[in-house]
Amino acid sequence: MNPSRPFAAVILAAGKGTRMKSDLHKVLHPVAGRPMLEHLLASVEGLGAARTVVVVGAGREQVEPLVARHGGEVVVQDPQLGTAHAVLQAQAALAGFDGDVLILYGDAPLVRPSTMARMLERLRAEDAPAVVVVAFRPADPLFYGRIVADADGTIRKMVEYKDATPEERALNLCNSGLMAARGADLWPLLSGVENDNAAGEYYLPDIVMLAAAVGRVSAAIETEADEVAGVNSRAELAELEAIWQRRRRAELMAEGVTFVAPETVFLAHDTEIGRDTIVEPNVVFGPGVRIAERVKLRAFSHLEGADVGTGAEIGPYARLRPGAEIGDRAKVGNFVEIKKARLGTGAKANHLSYIGDADVGADANVGAGTITCNYDGFFKYRTVIGEGAFVGSNSALVAPVAIGDGAIVGAGSVITGDVEAGALAVARGAQQVKPGWAARFRAAMRAKKKAI
Amino acid sequence: MNPSRPFAAVILAAGKGTRMKSDLHKVLHPVAGRPMLEHLLASVEGLGAARTVVVVGAGREQVEPLVARHGGEVVVQDPQLGTAHAVLQAQAALAGFDGDVLILYGDAPLVRPSTMARMLERLRAEDAPAVVVVAFRPADPLFYGRIVADADGTIRKMVEYKDATPEERALNLCNSGLMAARGADLWPLLSGVENDNAAGEYYLPDIVMLAAAVGRVSAAIETEADEVAGVNSRAELAELEAIWQRRRRAELMAEGVTFVAPETVFLAHDTEIGRDTIVEPNVVFGPGVRIAERVKLRAFSHLEGADVGTGAEIGPYARLRPGAEIGDRAKVGNFVEIKKARLGTGAKANHLSYIGDADVGADANVGAGTITCNYDGFFKYRTVIGEGAFVGSNSALVAPVAIGDGAIVGAGSVITGDVEAGALAVARGAQQVKPGWAARFRAAMRAKKKAI
Amino acid sequence: MNPSRPFAAVILAAGKGTRMKSDLHKVLHPVAGRPMLEHLLASVEGLGAARTVVVVGAGREQVEPLVARHGGEVVVQDPQLGTAHAVLQAQAALAGFDGDVLILYGDAPLVRPSTMARMLERLRAEDAPAVVVVAFRPADPLFYGRIVADADGTIRKMVEYKDATPEERALNLCNSGLMAARGADLWPLLSGVENDNAAGEYYLPDIVMLAAAVGRVSAAIETEADEVAGVNSRAELAELEAIWQRRRRAELMAEGVTFVAPETVFLAHDTEIGRDTIVEPNVVFGPGVRIAERVKLRAFSHLEGADVGTGAEIGPYARLRPGAEIGDRAKVGNFVEIKKARLGTGAKANHLSYIGDADVGADANVGAGTITCNYDGFFKYRTVIGEGAFVGSNSALVAPVAIGDGAIVGAGSVITGDVEAGALAVARGAQQVKPGWAARFRAAMRAKKKAI
Repeated sequence: MNPSRPFAAVILAAGKGTRMKSDLHKVLHPVAGRPMLEHLLASVEGLGAARTVVVVGAGREQVEPLVARHGGEVVVQDPQLGTAHAVLQAQAALAGFDGDVLILYGDAPLVRPSTMARMLERLRAEDAPAVVVVAFRPADPLFYGRIVADADGTIRKMVEYKDATPEERALNLCNSGLMAARGADLWPLLSGVENDNAAGEYYLPDIVMLAAAVGRVSAAIETEADEVAGVNSRAELAELEAIWQRRRRAELMAEGVTFVAPETVFLAHDTEIGRDTIVEPNVVFGPGVRIAERVKLRAFSHLEGADVGTGAEIGPYARLRPGAEIGDRAKVGNFVEIKKARLGTGAKANHLSYIGDADVGADANVGAGTITCNYDGFFKYRTVIGEGAFVGSNSALVAPVAIGDGAIVGAGSVITGDVEAGALAVARGAQQVKPGWAARFRAAMRAKKKAI
Repeated sequence: MNPSRPFAAVILAAGKGTRMKSDLHKVLHPVAGRPMLEHLLASVEGLGAARTVVVVGAGREQVEPLVARHGGEVVVQDPQLGTAHAVLQAQAALAGFDGDVLILYGDAPLVRPSTMARMLERLRAEDAPAVVVVAFRPADPLFYGRIVADADGTIRKMVEYKDATPEERALNLCNSGLMAARGADLWPLLSGVENDNAAGEYYLPDIVMLAAAVGRVSAAIETEADEVAGVNSRAELAELEAIWQRRRRAELMAEGVTFVAPETVFLAHDTEIGRDTIVEPNVVFGPGVRIAERVKLRAFSHLEGADVGTGAEIGPYARLRPGAEIGDRAKVGNFVEIKKARLGTGAKANHLSYIGDADVGADANVGAGTITCNYDGFFKYRTVIGEGAFVGSNSALVAPVAIGDGAIVGAGSVITGDVEAGALAVARGAQQVKPGWAARFRAAMRAKKKAI
Repeated sequence: MNPSRPFAAVILAAGKGTRMKSDLHKVLHPVAGRPMLEHLLASVEGLGAARTVVVVGAGREQVEPLVARHGGEVVVQDPQLGTAHAVLQAQAALAGFDGDVLILYGDAPLVRPSTMARMLERLRAEDAPAVVVVAFRPADPLFYGRIVADADGTIRKMVEYKDATPEERALNLCNSGLMAARGADLWPLLSGVENDNAAGEYYLPDIVMLAAAVGRVSAAIETEADEVAGVNSRAELAELEAIWQRRRRAELMAEGVTFVAPETVFLAHDTEIGRDTIVEPNVVFGPGVRIAERVKLRAFSHLEGADVGTGAEIGPYARLRPGAEIGDRAKVGNFVEIKKARLGTGAKANHLSYIGDADVGADANVGAGTITCNYDGFFKYRTVIGEGAFVGSNSALVAPVAIGDGAIVGAGSVITGDVEAGALAVARGAQQVKPGWAARFRAAMRAKKKAI
């Protein structure tokens, strides 16, 4: 695409979202662990948008921090007089901007960057149309506006469902609402839009017929229905999530990842998984996870903000939290939680452990039930476990504390002081046995139960 | 509906259920955590049934306690001579009852109370028919009996599939078997039913044609196929469960609950979830759970008999058992089990803990690996943890025991006696270190391994 | 089927599997926890194959150990000149074998033994055809080769899609590639196959027309499309897994197992589950599991290599690893891992425990947070817990160690020596309390936080 002309993105997000029944602004509801709006912000950022304007109705204060983080600007549409009116609210914010304008919808976040690029390419072609409209062919066209177009995409007519003839209704090429136009064309067209319709609203699609009235053609480009799906309810939000998940799982499988049961694995927007990694059923990824090659991710594992090295084995029931760095061939097993901790190459923490704020050396073995006591209610402290150290089961390591290389901690110990390399540390009470006590206790208790 | 006329429910449950291959009576197999029969018992109870009679074949002793609990009565059909004969078995039990009779099926529990109400309304309308029949239009009509009816529901003919003409078979309006009639009409009609058919059975639908023969019309009312689905096998039981789950998830989403992956969340018949609560993938609810608003229910959590306050965060891998009461903004985290215990506002139990028979004060912090030792093999004892107390990791609290407000328990302690407010309690062995011991041990063990 | 004639299986596994993007040979990718190839090896073994030859291209060294374990032989096809050429590579290995040859595909492992038996039966019938071809009717026939056949299966023509007439393409009877022929017929036919086609390959289906040319008829037998599905990508591998899982779940439900949500339960190739066992959502089986009758398998459980007795209750979140033997009516609960350990009748381990290399007596109670310390970094040691013993919560049992019948271990103990029957053993530090310490600590820490 001609990179010499800049583009701006105008993202409409003024819908009330009443059917969401939520205190959270509709476009902030997440898909794949990221607000819907942020999917679009990231996409246009990636394409090099010169400017980004988000048009909101209510809830500006909720949306603004996210938009600002991505270098965009929020404008308010009040009152809300239709989509053409909404886009017009961005005009002042784009004063001085001379380029192309991409019109997107905050509640339709699955548009691929490649589709946005196609919109701009079409707009920059030699036979550039006045307006580029993204069209789709839904399985069931319902009440969508229809597009009457030639085979090459030249639009003959745009018509709302209610105004369409039976022949037009029989067409299944529908208007997604996504459009692109040069700013120089867009603003005049928008100011020509009238609201002489039943709802008294200014409709964006009208710009196509207005352009036609002055002899300018518009062009449709087609995309999949899934890509332009929008969200008006929690059920539709769940459907969008499902579309996203299916798409991403398919990509990862094509790249050489095995999902035993793809439909039970939930990925985040930035999940990366290496080739020949096997993901068992029921694995959930939060944001920020990178999995290397040949990893075995076993069932019921939950990962967020974690980095897993080549050949590691994770789970079942492993819980990796932000800052978990699992070395090559390391093992994190059943009911083990790792947070802000590094496990060295080949290190193992296989059962019922909490490893937080720690550094575990290569080939160290952390026994079942080991807990790093990293918090005193005010501050967090680090635990260091040396290379090849062996921490016996059910031990508590009271941080800050260091276990030296090759040291051994006896099972059931509460370690409060550092242990030097190669040493044994034991901290537990002596065993006392009272013969016959249990038998007498049981007899007494049985009597008591009977008495009740 | 005219409340002046009482109604009785007759629930047929005499089917042998052979294909279930079960020792449990078919109608006791659960859907949404409640026996199928109980769904119906609860529905007719809710509508104010004056009387409820359940007709069983074998297994009376299994069914009777449940029916009795809902104020109903069980009668036995022996031998089993068809559905008309089955309904007749309820006549004696309904002696003296003068009102409407609703005929339901114990293995078709998804009938909505609103549909039952519609049946009664139709029966009580001014142009009251002799019999009201619930009809449905299955995607594939198969071998269901067909109903030939006018647009207003007036039934012209009921015909078994095998006796139907090709034109009749082409109809997709089918007989669900659910019917309503005034007792005064029903009993005489039933006694007129003959068994001159191949199976030698008395068929309930015959009452419609018998009524017609004496000049009385019957009326069909339509409902969704899903609602009248019945169970004859475990596969069909699973399908019914799936129908129920989809229905309830959709309701909750419409009320403002987010399910990231609705198909992975399993609800119970009485699950309540507040608005703006987010439910991550793979959450399972047993009966008796109430979730407030703005709760975060993270993946792999399992809840039954629990109450969760506003803004709380539960899981991943939280296990709430009956009697768990989680306060507002409290947190129950990874691999933590709560049973008959109250967590105060803002209290936290985030890792690998068992909190049973306990009372945890507001803002208290229960460290990783903490166990309340609540059982001595005979009796259960309570643990009380005061407001703002801090229980160090890997501690065992041997109940009955009380930790005072703001007290601190040192990590790895076994607390057997009460700790006063503001105090520190520590109960652990002193740490002993043997320099070089680990290195010598390893050398010896390596030698031993080699020797083997 | 006539058992007097032996049969050999030739399994083609020479495909490059490029789209798998894997270092693992395609036919070794598992379905239901078993390599695809092994499904076929086990099937032909079960049918009594006299000889088994697997034809590979690259990766012989990966495939050979598995084939050898099943008594088969690997031959290499190099260069790879088509399927007819591939089968011919088995001829030398089958020198001296005089019987029937079954041609299977290593990447199409779901063929039922009963279908293989039907192939052989057809080949051994009085009107034995030269070649038996397995045909199927896919929902969408796509580019599969078509079979023109009479109603009795006599094949009139086999035609590649690209060579087919519109009428032939309209047929939906397709060639699966699976074939059977007597060796005496097969080898001469194969040597007659030519490679005068676009790809320059020797195609196996050509033998059918070659047989026809010498007056021999061939016969098609039909099977379901699901059974002959093949794998060329990870997505197709996942689809095959899904087909297998649906098939096996349906079988188990038909035998009297309840799956609350069948689509969330993942079975292994050899999973056995008894009648009236209830499996809650989200249960994953690895290989080697046998579940008795009336067991309750609760949500989020993961089992492999385990044996569970009648009426036991497992989970939620139970992790049974190889060698777990759970007795009748025993309970393994939340976040409990059992490995190489026997739990006696009625024994309980309900919370946060690791029981490895242990023998737990009948009716013993293992308290929450109990850990068997079975490993010293070099050897594993056994723990024995006697009948009716009671192990207090958060105890560590340092193996080798024996707790006698009816003995009691006090909560929080580290048990290093044997405890005699009926005795009480306690091993923990004495409790020390420092009044006011916590309050002073907090004040100091608050000051420190403020200072930061």
